[in-house]
Amino acid sequence: MWKAKTPGIPDELFEHDIGCGSGSISVEAALQVEESGSVHAIDFDAKAVELTKKNIAKFNLENILVSFGNAKEIINSLPDADAIFIGGTGGDTKEIVELCENKLKSGGRIVIGIILIETLYSVLKTIENLKFTSTDITQITIGKSRKTSTGTMMLSRNPVSVISSTKI
Amino acid sequence: MWKAKTPGIPDELFEHDIGCGSGSISVEAALQVEESGSVHAIDFDAKAVELTKKNIAKFNLENILVSFGNAKEIINSLPDADAIFIGGTGGDTKEIVELCENKLKSGGRIVIGIILIETLYSVLKTIENLKFTSTDITQITIGKSRKTSTGTMMLSRNPVSVISSTKI
Amino acid sequence: MWKAKTPGIPDELFEHDIGCGSGSISVEAALQVEESGSVHAIDFDAKAVELTKKNIAKFNLENILVSFGNAKEIINSLPDADAIFIGGTGGDTKEIVELCENKLKSGGRIVIGIILIETLYSVLKTIENLKFTSTDITQITIGKSRKTSTGTMMLSRNPVSVISSTKI
Amino acid sequence: MWKAKTPGIPDELFEHDIGCGSGSISVEAALQVEESGSVHAIDFDAKAVELTKKNIAKFNLENILVSFGNAKEIINSLPDADAIFIGGTGGDTKEIVELCENKLKSGGRIVIGIILIETLYSVLKTIENLKFTSTDITQITIGKSRKTSTGTMMLSRNPVSVISSTKI
Repeated sequence: MWKAKTPGIPDELFEHDIGCGSGSISVEAALQVEESGSVHAIDFDAKAVELTKKNIAKFNLENILVSFGNAKEIINSLPDADAIFIGGTGGDTKEIVELCENKLKSGGRIVIGIILIETLYSVLKTIENLKFTSTDITQITIGKSRKTSTGTMMLSRNPVSVISSTKI
Repeated sequence: MWKAKTPGIPDELFEHDIGCGSGSISVEAALQVEESGSVHAIDFDAKAVELTKKNIAKFNLENILVSFGNAKEIINSLPDADAIFIGGTGGDTKEIVELCENKLKSGGRIVIGIILIETLYSVLKTIENLKFTSTDITQITIGKSRKTSTGTMMLSRNPVSVISSTKI
Repeated sequence: MWKAKTPGIPDELFEHDIGCGSGSISVEAALQVEESGSVHAIDFDAKAVELTKKNIAKFNLENILVSFGNAKEIINSLPDADAIFIGGTGGDTKEIVELCENKLKSGGRIVIGIILIETLYSVLKTIENLKFTSTDITQITIGKSRKTSTGTMMLSRNPVSVISSTKI
Repeated sequence: MWKAKTPGIPDELFEHDIGCGSGSISVEAALQVEESGSVHAIDFDAKAVELTKKNIAKFNLENILVSFGNAKEIINSLPDADAIFIGGTGGDTKEIVELCENKLKSGGRIVIGIILIETLYSVLKTIENLKFTSTDITQITIGKSRKTSTGTMMLSRNPVSVISSTKI
């Protein structure tokens, strides 16, 4: 079974959430690590930062710091992380993964959500050339039910790929 | 390998297409069987019948008959079939499958496209209770590429199930 | 965003895990609710019960009770639940869902993992006839990467359907 | 609707099948084009060539030529093609696509079946840099039914991607 509360997310210490969007991952991570850790959320979209702050307030969380700006400039000023989640980038995923390699503690896990074929390939190649091991790709396709007048049909969501890998 | 030009569609004689929609299946079947066979297309939507006729004209086909009306009333007047395709029904799929059992020659194949969970179950149970064998369900999920400004993403189409079965 | 730490799992009080298997859901639920709640795990396979106990020990959890036996006989002796998860049944899913209706508090959520087409239909119909609302079906198809000598291929896991619904 | 009997396969003239495997595509294509065209099948696996020949005999086809050898050496000796299908390569997909560009008539279609993430990316990039247009990627995930003692489950086949593109 998994070694932590949620597979791939250690139970304590520092986690970074790059491209935090609505803050869903940051909030979940902050709830998991509780007082024993903290989360840094970054987004270069001001609306995403605002939304993340609202969700932090909603859950009364005090262990999330939110930064507005370019992850490539902010990452270096952050503490070393036990886990890094990359939910979105402005097309610089490869560069950001390279910067994250330095910020991730040995044994720490990087988890990257990917939509584009080109990014999937590029991140896979980047990780193979950096100090990572136990790389895994999961492609997820979800169907959700919709009730119609004659019965229940399934509507497909677009597929998402998730690469996760452990820093050597 | 398959025994016919297209798996599940015999190369000659009579084929019925119930709920023919745009006529795509009828046209394909008519092209496959050529002079040696003919196709009966049925739809109770006048627009579908018109569209099917247009597509028949476009392909210069003379071996498709199109009927406008309720399949449940029309089926009995048709000749026995070597293959029946059911692309859509007005919620009477179960009844129509039962009527088709009588119209299908021994060794003939019925192929049914299905979207609703309720129809999938109901047709599966119906077929199990009729004179059919070699029943197979295939669920198909398709992703199609879309070029974006930053790369190529995949868009999911809704899943479709196809039940096919052979008349004993 | 979700109202609880993990969507569909309330943060406290009683949760039941029917057909607990390895105990993965029970352990996750127990970690989520912490001291404020407890989990009842049930399985009629002695090996599953042993495995669940091992996993409970591994995580040092004191808020999981494990019962060996038939869920249909045990459910009535359990306290009312805030959430019930049904991971597996011996083909009695419909009956067990009916029993769970009585054990679930108003506003509580039932979550059922399903593999068979017949069970999917039967549970969907059962829930529609009981005091449930906000029923949702999610079908999940997962691909996992495998490294080959020439590159990275994706291997598909079999699809799983999850029905979740809220007690009125 | 499609312009030809089977979408992407023109109804006449020359078609090449690179990595023909069992010959399924070659046989289907030969049946489609009939007397008005011919198919060249190539494979560097002697067993695949034998199997293709058996299937050609089974269908009494006289319009398929089978070549045993390396597609990269054979392609140049073939006539210009109206359609080329690449079902498998020994890791040289990129090079073979480049060679095929010269062999494909203007308006002809290349269709490539792909399993590896690296090949998907590499072929996509190669095609973008050659004289091709209307490039489309389709990812197909299939589930097939299996009858168990308690009901009908779906078994997933591994996903396959198909790139198709038209020579300018």
